[in-house]
Amino acid sequence: MLIQEKKQYNWKPIIKAFEAILGKNGVVQRREELITYECDGLTSYRQRPAVVVLPRTTEQIAELVKVCNKYSVPFIARGSGTGLSGGALPSENSVLIVTSLMRQILNVDLDNQRIVVQPGVINSWVTQTVSGAGFYYAPDPSSQIICSIGGNVAENSGGVHCLKYGVTTNHVLGLKIVTPTGEILDLGGQVPEMPGYDLTGVFVGSEGTLGIATEITLRILKSAESICVLLADFTSVEAAGASVSDIISAGIIPGGMEMMDNISINAVEDVVATNCYPRDATAILLVEIDGLDVEVELNKQRVAEICKKNGARNVTAASDPETRLKLWKGRKAAFAAAGHLSPDYYVQDGVIPRTKLTYVLQEIEALSQKFGYQIANVFHAGDGNLHPLILFDNAVPGALEKVEEVGGEILKLCVKVGGSISGEHGIGADKKCYMSDMFSPADLESMQWIRQVFNPQGLANPDKIFPTPRTCGEAANAISMKKFPGVEQF
Amino acid sequence: MLIQEKKQYNWKPIIKAFEAILGKNGVVQRREELITYECDGLTSYRQRPAVVVLPRTTEQIAELVKVCNKYSVPFIARGSGTGLSGGALPSENSVLIVTSLMRQILNVDLDNQRIVVQPGVINSWVTQTVSGAGFYYAPDPSSQIICSIGGNVAENSGGVHCLKYGVTTNHVLGLKIVTPTGEILDLGGQVPEMPGYDLTGVFVGSEGTLGIATEITLRILKSAESICVLLADFTSVEAAGASVSDIISAGIIPGGMEMMDNISINAVEDVVATNCYPRDATAILLVEIDGLDVEVELNKQRVAEICKKNGARNVTAASDPETRLKLWKGRKAAFAAAGHLSPDYYVQDGVIPRTKLTYVLQEIEALSQKFGYQIANVFHAGDGNLHPLILFDNAVPGALEKVEEVGGEILKLCVKVGGSISGEHGIGADKKCYMSDMFSPADLESMQWIRQVFNPQGLANPDKIFPTPRTCGEAANAISMKKFPGVEQF
Repeated sequence: MLIQEKKQYNWKPIIKAFEAILGKNGVVQRREELITYECDGLTSYRQRPAVVVLPRTTEQIAELVKVCNKYSVPFIARGSGTGLSGGALPSENSVLIVTSLMRQILNVDLDNQRIVVQPGVINSWVTQTVSGAGFYYAPDPSSQIICSIGGNVAENSGGVHCLKYGVTTNHVLGLKIVTPTGEILDLGGQVPEMPGYDLTGVFVGSEGTLGIATEITLRILKSAESICVLLADFTSVEAAGASVSDIISAGIIPGGMEMMDNISINAVEDVVATNCYPRDATAILLVEIDGLDVEVELNKQRVAEICKKNGARNVTAASDPETRLKLWKGRKAAFAAAGHLSPDYYVQDGVIPRTKLTYVLQEIEALSQKFGYQIANVFHAGDGNLHPLILFDNAVPGALEKVEEVGGEILKLCVKVGGSISGEHGIGADKKCYMSDMFSPADLESMQWIRQVFNPQGLANPDKIFPTPRTCGEAANAISMKKFPGVEQF
Repeated sequence: MLIQEKKQYNWKPIIKAFEAILGKNGVVQRREELITYECDGLTSYRQRPAVVVLPRTTEQIAELVKVCNKYSVPFIARGSGTGLSGGALPSENSVLIVTSLMRQILNVDLDNQRIVVQPGVINSWVTQTVSGAGFYYAPDPSSQIICSIGGNVAENSGGVHCLKYGVTTNHVLGLKIVTPTGEILDLGGQVPEMPGYDLTGVFVGSEGTLGIATEITLRILKSAESICVLLADFTSVEAAGASVSDIISAGIIPGGMEMMDNISINAVEDVVATNCYPRDATAILLVEIDGLDVEVELNKQRVAEICKKNGARNVTAASDPETRLKLWKGRKAAFAAAGHLSPDYYVQDGVIPRTKLTYVLQEIEALSQKFGYQIANVFHAGDGNLHPLILFDNAVPGALEKVEEVGGEILKLCVKVGGSISGEHGIGADKKCYMSDMFSPADLESMQWIRQVFNPQGLANPDKIFPTPRTCGEAANAISMKKFPGVEQF
């Protein structure tokens, strides 16, 4: 019973009910104010919500969701709106539940390395809260100074340090959620070992389709004694890729291992001027080593040797916080910097087995030539998570469609070599039509079972993740809802 | 529609159908042969299956399950039968699907650090297969030389090295499963970053209630350059507990950190004679440090200093493989050794926040006094995973019931301090009545939703994990199946 046809709603009683829960200040309905909310970081998709609500508590969210259920109105949760797959894109005639007033740190338990936060808390605040005591929160998306933990949970966000420490799902111990029907549930707990089905794991990355997280218990880690960032400068992508493989094969697990190509390097230097990146390099690797002083010192030497052996022209190492931050600042600004190279850019997010790096980069170059768009490559090389940036001008008629086709070809390439169509940005509105390339009808069907038991009216973030005939045409038709006995009962 | 009442089946056509799939040799039905299968490692629960089948392929399992569905016969998967919570305990009039003929290593991909195995493959074979190339598989239950990977997946097994490296779920990348209705699905994939709902995570630890894993893709890790095991000898449990906290607080993450009390120490020395454990110690800590040589050398010193500071009488370190194995052999034999202290023993498995260690051990001692049973304590101290061994004589009428009561009190204690009723052994048949102490009716209900969509007839391992009125009385009555709109449709 997913919402598929255009509906007309009588908004008056709905708004009145919302105002009764939140007061007039908590309900935004003026057209000009709603514009802010018509897209997230994926700006090529836009849809104005009918109304925006700004709750402050779990109970308020539960009440709001119950009102949505009563009137069968779709609702979408939104944190800071920095997502890159359109996961927080409103649907037509929908309610946008924005968590940006829910920014309390609810509990800090350093002894047990846990912190409990509301969903609107900004990612970098978590580390700021605990860093004085020598702890940090590992997942660090490039948008970490603005993105929210709630959004990170929804999209299972990654970051440059996820190679060694894992993505968001590896750091969420427990969740309080409001289900799509307005019930309050506790998933997981305060210790990682919880019996029964791992619903915390299912919820993380479910992109708002299984409910809204209202309290999040995160694992925090002890800061390393020493951190060093190496910059290795290569004249070929193959040499950089071989170094990545060799570093991992040597048993070194860097905190992060990132590759940037020549286009990205120059874009970053033009915009943020780190003055650290060699503009004539074909590719650079940024390798962060963390651990004990002695360990970092030794691994630094080993990484440098591996890069040199593979033909690096130069390897420099920075241990002082200022230079380290500068090196990362460039990497983290890479997407924004691409915006200066052309009027528009489209960020893709795919994963490949590390061993296929060189082949896939050659194929991406071939796509660039074939379609006539420059493609900058910035990626989490250690875990094979690519972020090709396709540069284009949206003012040219038909350009967006063509660029989306290139993006699609890149995803199909990732699937072909045994990878994935999303590493950390989620599927959202953007990639749902590619889910059928990655999963069989039966596999997708089994995910739908879970969606439907939690989200029986289909009101929680409809039109996301899963392909539908309306939006994806034939790709979605392959998914028959009658295949399994368990589903016929719906 | 879970199976709740006693049913009579006409086994003739069922057996005939099984024989058509497997041949006569693949179907075991002689009473005396079936005795082997009437319990797993939890020997206090016994139930003979009606028939045992021995498939060799995914397709055969799918066919067998379809036959079970056709005749509405419950079926239970079993690997090596070493589980300690009765997860592989047959139900009355059930089919036991035993995977011990499915022992092929299907694929080894060292470059991408993956291995694909059949479910009957023995845990320690995985490491044996890849160790020559410098890799290993991290989860290592004490039963690793006999337990199967399929069983590990079902129970989300742990082991002494899970403190640093995580339990089974952290090492399973993908699964081929046969669903409870006989469909073949692929969950997860070859890279960790898979979009959509994390069904792999839900399946791992679902104890056979969501289907049977038939191919398992595991992550393998690079072996550490150096490994050292420290043995610290304490005259009080508090001092050992304080050392555990201080080691973690210092930012050291040992490969494993185990505590054994005086009773366990002596039981182990009586039986396996490591000649390493001090018989007069109140508690010992075994701390394994792994990593680079320099790192291990430094952390060894730091751990020793912390233990000494907390009053350790003696700290010894072993880096040579022989002594290291001897130290671990004692720990891994602790359960079996307890069997020599008294006619019977009951192993409990609970988790507590590390900071509550001293308090909880005092309370366990009080329970021991109150009920008059000796309790030996052996546990994964680093992650707060307790394994109290309650020593008793099952020949004494009523003893088992009393011991189960003690075990239940320990679980309630774990929940009270914010922990969990299972760290690594699963819920199975043994602990389902305690699920209501840990989860609210709504939380349990949401797990049931998932069970019911995958397992609509309730045939896959019924009577496990979830409390039912028939077996748990009032505890289960709290769970109403009508609470949520999504469930009324079943």
